[in-house]
Formats: sequence, C-alpha cells, structure tokens
Amino acid sequence: MPRTEPDLVIKNAVVVTADARRRVIDGGGVAVSSGRITDVLPAAELAAHEAGAGRVVDAAGMLLMPGLVNTHCHAGDSLFRGLVEDLPLEAWLQTVWKAEAAILNPETSRLGSVLGFAEQLLSGVTTVMDMFWYPRETVEAARAVGMRVSTGGIFFDPPGVNGHGLERRKAEAERFFAEHAGADDVFPAVLPHGAYTVAPDNLVAARAIADAHGGLFSIHAAETLAEQADVGGRYGRSVIRHLDHHGLLDARTVLAHCVHLDDEEIAILARTRAVVSHNPVSNLKLGSGIARVPDMLEAGVRVTLGTDGAISGNDLDLWLALRLAAMLHKGANHRADAVSTQQALDMVTREGAAALGAEDRIGSLEPGKFADMVLVDLKRPHAVPLFDPVTHLVYSTGRSDVRHVFLAGEQVVRDGVLTRLDIAETIAAVEALAPKIAASIA
Amino acid sequence: MPRTEPDLVIKNAVVVTADARRRVIDGGGVAVSSGRITDVLPAAELAAHEAGAGRVVDAAGMLLMPGLVNTHCHAGDSLFRGLVEDLPLEAWLQTVWKAEAAILNPETSRLGSVLGFAEQLLSGVTTVMDMFWYPRETVEAARAVGMRVSTGGIFFDPPGVNGHGLERRKAEAERFFAEHAGADDVFPAVLPHGAYTVAPDNLVAARAIADAHGGLFSIHAAETLAEQADVGGRYGRSVIRHLDHHGLLDARTVLAHCVHLDDEEIAILARTRAVVSHNPVSNLKLGSGIARVPDMLEAGVRVTLGTDGAISGNDLDLWLALRLAAMLHKGANHRADAVSTQQALDMVTREGAAALGAEDRIGSLEPGKFADMVLVDLKRPHAVPLFDPVTHLVYSTGRSDVRHVFLAGEQVVRDGVLTRLDIAETIAAVEALAPKIAASIA
Repeated sequence: MPRTEPDLVIKNAVVVTADARRRVIDGGGVAVSSGRITDVLPAAELAAHEAGAGRVVDAAGMLLMPGLVNTHCHAGDSLFRGLVEDLPLEAWLQTVWKAEAAILNPETSRLGSVLGFAEQLLSGVTTVMDMFWYPRETVEAARAVGMRVSTGGIFFDPPGVNGHGLERRKAEAERFFAEHAGADDVFPAVLPHGAYTVAPDNLVAARAIADAHGGLFSIHAAETLAEQADVGGRYGRSVIRHLDHHGLLDARTVLAHCVHLDDEEIAILARTRAVVSHNPVSNLKLGSGIARVPDMLEAGVRVTLGTDGAISGNDLDLWLALRLAAMLHKGANHRADAVSTQQALDMVTREGAAALGAEDRIGSLEPGKFADMVLVDLKRPHAVPLFDPVTHLVYSTGRSDVRHVFLAGEQVVRDGVLTRLDIAETIAAVEALAPKIAASIA
Repeated sequence: MPRTEPDLVIKNAVVVTADARRRVIDGGGVAVSSGRITDVLPAAELAAHEAGAGRVVDAAGMLLMPGLVNTHCHAGDSLFRGLVEDLPLEAWLQTVWKAEAAILNPETSRLGSVLGFAEQLLSGVTTVMDMFWYPRETVEAARAVGMRVSTGGIFFDPPGVNGHGLERRKAEAERFFAEHAGADDVFPAVLPHGAYTVAPDNLVAARAIADAHGGLFSIHAAETLAEQADVGGRYGRSVIRHLDHHGLLDARTVLAHCVHLDDEEIAILARTRAVVSHNPVSNLKLGSGIARVPDMLEAGVRVTLGTDGAISGNDLDLWLALRLAAMLHKGANHRADAVSTQQALDMVTREGAAALGAEDRIGSLEPGKFADMVLVDLKRPHAVPLFDPVTHLVYSTGRSDVRHVFLAGEQVVRDGVLTRLDIAETIAAVEALAPKIAASIA
C-alpha cells in the first residue's frame, strides 16, 4: 500500500518511461504527490494507489511520456515568424537584427516569448533552453504558460537590440543568478551569442560567471561554413578548437547547431562531454547544412534537440526535429539504420534533461522526479495501428496529438488548451503588432 | 449580379488561389454552384452572391486553398504503419511483401485504404494517386471518405499478394478502365510496380492499355542505388534510360521517387515531360537518398509531391512532404534559396493536378473547376503572425490546422471530423487486425 495518498493517479496508459532501462509499460501509469512522481507501475500494482487519490485520470487510448526538453530556442522571435526568407544565415541575420532592433523591448520580448512558449507547451515541451535579449521577461513568459526554462544573461559585442555594453551585460548575467537561485523552474545559464560575435576575453568572462554560480553555458557554434571561415580567419582555429582552447567546453556547455565538424572536433566534443543541440529544421531551411549526427553518436558525443527560433524554422515544432533527427541522417548517409528511434527519443527526454544538468529532476518518468508529463492521443487515423510505442512517437504522432500536459503534477494543458493563460489575447496582441513588424524591414 | 444563386459562398478568407497568376486575395472568397467554382472574388464583389446563396461560410481567421494533390501513395499499407523499421528498401520490401501476402485480401485492402484516405482527407488532400493490389477496393475506399483517386490495375511479375498472372493483370487493368470511364472522381491509370519487378514486354503491354484508354501510367523509378545497379545489370541501361528506350515516358507518366539521376536523365525527363513524384519522407527514412529537386526544377522537369505509403513513412502527411520539399534541398545543397515556397506549393496544387491530366478540373481555385477546397485555421499559436500566406502554408501550418474540407462543394470534413464516415469504426477494425499483422512477420 502507498505510504501517502497521491494527489494524482494516471492509469491505463501506454507508458514510455525514458528511464535508464527504457521501460515501456502497456496499461500502466503513475502516482504523483506534491508535484513529484512517487510510483511508475503496471495496472495491477497501480490500483492500490487509486482509492485515496485526489484525482484519477483514465488515459485509455493515450500514451504517457515525460515532458519534452528543447535545448535551443529563441521563443521571443516568434514575433518575426516568416518575415525573412530564402537568405543564408549571415545575410539573414542582418535583416533579423534590423527587425529585432526596431521592435524588441522588454514588453514585446515578453509577448513574443509567451507566444513561443505557448506553442511549445501545447506540443508537450515542458522545459526549454532559451537565448533572448531580456531574460527576466523570458522567465516571466515561461511562468505565465507553465514551463521550466534555462536562460540567463546574453553576451553580444555589437550593440544588439538593447545597446548594453560589456559591463552591463556582466552585471545582468550576475543578477540573473542572484534572482533565480533555488528556483525549481529556472536553470540559470549564461548565453553568449557566438564565437564570431563575442571576443575571446568576453567569452571567458561569461564562462567565469556561469562557473561561479554552477550555471550552464550555451553558445551558437559551427553553424555555417561562413562562420567557420570567419572564426578561422580571426583566430587561426576552427570554432570548436577555439572554444576548447579557451577552456569553454565541458559537461555544462550546450553548443547549438554543430553542423560543420571534422573528425577531430567530434573527438573534442566527446572528450569534453560538451552537449550538442542539433537543430535540423533551422539548419535545413537556412541552407546551413546537415550535421554529422550518426558520427557524433558513434563517437559518444551527447546529442540533444532544439527547434531554434520561429524566425528561422517558422515554428517551434520539436516533434518535427525529433522525426528529422531519426530520418534525415538515414537519407543523407544512405543508411536506413543511421539513427535509431530510441536514440532520437532520448535526445528530447533524458539526454535533454542531462544537458541542463537536471537529469535528477526531469527527462524521464521515475520516482522522485518532477511530474512533468504528456498524454498523447493514440486514436487518430494517422497513428493507427500501434506496434512499437517508441517508433510511433518518433514517426507517426506529432504536436497535434498532445492532449494533456502536466508540470509538476499541475495540468497546464487540458484537451489542447492552456490552463494558465488565454492565448487568444496574446494572439490578438501579436497580430496588432504585425504591421509594425512588417514595416521594420521595409 | 450572379446569373444563378450559388449553393455555397465562402467569404472573409485569405484566398490562395494557386491560379496561373498565383493570386492571393486577402478577405475574399468563392461562390460554388453544382459542385463547381463559379467565382473567386474579393469581399466587395462577393457580397452580391451572398444574398441568395444556399449556405454562407464565414471564413474569418482562415485561409482558403485548393484541395491538395498527392501523386504517390499506397493507402492500404497504413495497416502496416511502423511494422518494419530500420532496413534499406530491398531488405525492407522482402518483409513488407511477406506481411502483405499474409494479411491483404480485398476486404483488408479496403479497410487499410479507408484508414489511409481518411488520414489524408483530414489533412486537406482531396486527390491521390494510389498504387495498390485491389484497385476496385481502392476506389470504394476513396468514395467512402470523399476523395478523388487515380488508380487502376497494377503489374508485378512475381506472384505478389494475390498471385495473379500477367493475363489476369491485363484483363483487370482493362476492366478498370471500362468500369470507371467517365467518372468524375476517378482518374484511371495503369501502375506497374517497377523496372526491376516487371519485364520490359510487360511494361510495354501495360502502357498500351493505358494509351488505348487515354489513361495515366505510373511506376516506381530510380528510388535507390541498388535498383539502378539491378536494372543496369539486367538491361545495360539506367532506369530512366530503360523506360525511355521502351517509349514509356511522356506527359501522362508519373515516376515515383527519381532519387538517383544523372544530368542526362534529368534532361530526358525534361524533354519527355514525364512527371516526377518526389517523396522526401520515404526517401529519407528508407535511406534511399535525397533527390536532386533543385536541378530538376532548373531543367524544367515537372515535379510533384507524394507521401508514399505509411509502411515506409509511417504516416501520410503531405504537409510534411511540402515542408521538406522547400527546406530539405536548401540544407542538402547549402543554398537558402534552393526551392522557393511557391515552387513547393505548386507541387501539391496545380502541378499535382497537371500530373493527373486534370489541370482543367482541379488544382486551383478558378471558375469552372471542381470546388475541392480546404479551410486552414490561421489562429493557432504556432502560426501567428502571418506575413506571407504562401510562406505560411509551406513552413508554419500543417495537417492539424485543416478545419474544413470540401469536395465538389460537399463538406467532407467539418471541424476536423469526416462527414461521410465514422472513422472510429475503421480504427477499431484495424486495431482488431493488428495482432495478426504483428504475427505475420514474427
């Protein structure tokens, strides 16, 4: 018998735990107390927990999985979805920065971030690493919809959106740690933009702030051939070697993109335990290239998945990134077994959690972890019949199949609708801003 | 004033016509009489048609577009979704054929086809070219949900699912034309499986039947390197040259896949006006490769899009194929402008219709054409704001945004639900069959 009566029991689900043994339980469920999972059990054993439970959810016809983790995003850029098209990264960035400079302030950043987080939460993403200009507003937006977020001060040597200089950026990064110490729903980080936009000394200074607080460090890296040429020309080393040379790579580092790597750079990533955030949608659409994911996995590099911003990928669909992670590299390498479905699913669950140093709290359904959970509909015509649940999640189901989402046991999405926020108001506010956004690059 | 009062008026939509001028009308709509579009107009001019209309649909917040055309599918294979994984085409086919032989008969083929067509109609596909073992049941299934279908007798020299020999296949192909002559909702075809499974004489015989009836001819072609090696070894010519040598390529030919082509083969396709059905999802997942779509477009080859079957791609999401058509080749070629959004959208609208010889009846919103129409929701968080409607359709909206679908003016999907059929019964029947399907390859 359970020691305490649970607040919530979910039963009769196909449970994909993403635990160390990758257990799948057909017809099981979980018990939740005080926001944490207490038990993950088959039907027979779960029954004992049901009697005194505060709420029992019958998940027949649904699949229960951990909330997804997106390791690279700029949610606020959802304001600019579809605005700048058919340009390579470098030319594209010039136009993007023009639009951002004209439009973004703390208020509009918060608005765009709410839109971007709402989209993701509705798709079952419960934790996101987000790099944006106003990290306090990023946290406010994540809390408004009900997500965990890893974010913090950004570093960018040009004036950027808010024109803050280095000293102010350092102070902001420090302050972010002070303000979010001990928060369950924030994983504080320092996020310099890139090796081509932040000088080595400033990267080192950013890293020192992260290290002083036990925080994370995330940066764009090796996204395009032009970036490699730029950094190589300035510093005589490729991007990954440059970052390694300055002592910036370790298990608390998340490198967004890593499209263009040679074998030795892959070995450096494996040795340092730095995490790659693979962003296939953005990399394809901007013409950046196709990352060497099978080679990275074979070398033991930690690979996770990101959506990047909706300004490059045009939406924030982590399910599309998941599906591409499993199938793009099969096609690109002419190998039908290039990335397994389990490897792909790991990227958005347990590996994503580990990337944020949070594998003890999120990323799988296991006793003691936060009850961040997703219920996926299994009864829609595009996802019937079901033979293997992991294959099913990677290739057949998608964002629109997510029916219910729980964050620490609180239902934050019910039947496809956010519970904390009326998203219609956000949508109306974004649409009201749209003419000004369009004019910003005219 | 209109000459006759329309049966249906749809107003206040963002109208993407896909007509010859690619007109987009913000705040317009259509009038429909007797299943045909009579007018495509801006709001002010449409108002005159509204008064006496049988039904007026206010499409504010929605986008109106023509029904999509999928030029390569095996809908019945939806029964085997996710059953055979991580194998290259040739090994995969051996297992697939084993499962098909154990499970498929006219009744189960019809069941699987209903499932596959239901999935597609719900996503806004109103016309599909489908190659499967029992074409009569394919037509029945398409009619059951409310779609147009191009199908007909298949040719396959091995015994295949039903063990029919050549003479019987010829008779069946002939009979299909006789039975479907003059049907508005069927575009009759002859569909030999491939150059490696059908001998040249039999391909020529199949073609003769198609030609005698003015029908279409569709075949898998140049899908994998192994197929090229096989056909090259047998006949001393690559697949496209082999088909051209036997006079099988012309404007009534649809070639599924065409992944592996040299420059001269691309020139042959351009010269003969044969249509390519690009199937990016299947090609990636089976490790077949990445088709040279930008080169084909540049050479003037007619390129359309297909989903292939759910047994290879694991769903039948033409929106995913659309998005990949626009973005995959940017990444693979390091060119952010490799395929334009308009080129991609053309593939699933006017070019798809032309591939089936039906550009006078479907594929765009124009007076005189069938009122095959889709209303797409524009108010969901992943698809706000909207700057350019074509960009939006290709990169931001997807199958789950399709709210309403009309076939010849009849509403066949209403708020995401089929109107002709209760799909729950189909799903239950497929699930009841699933254990037997799993056992078929055990």
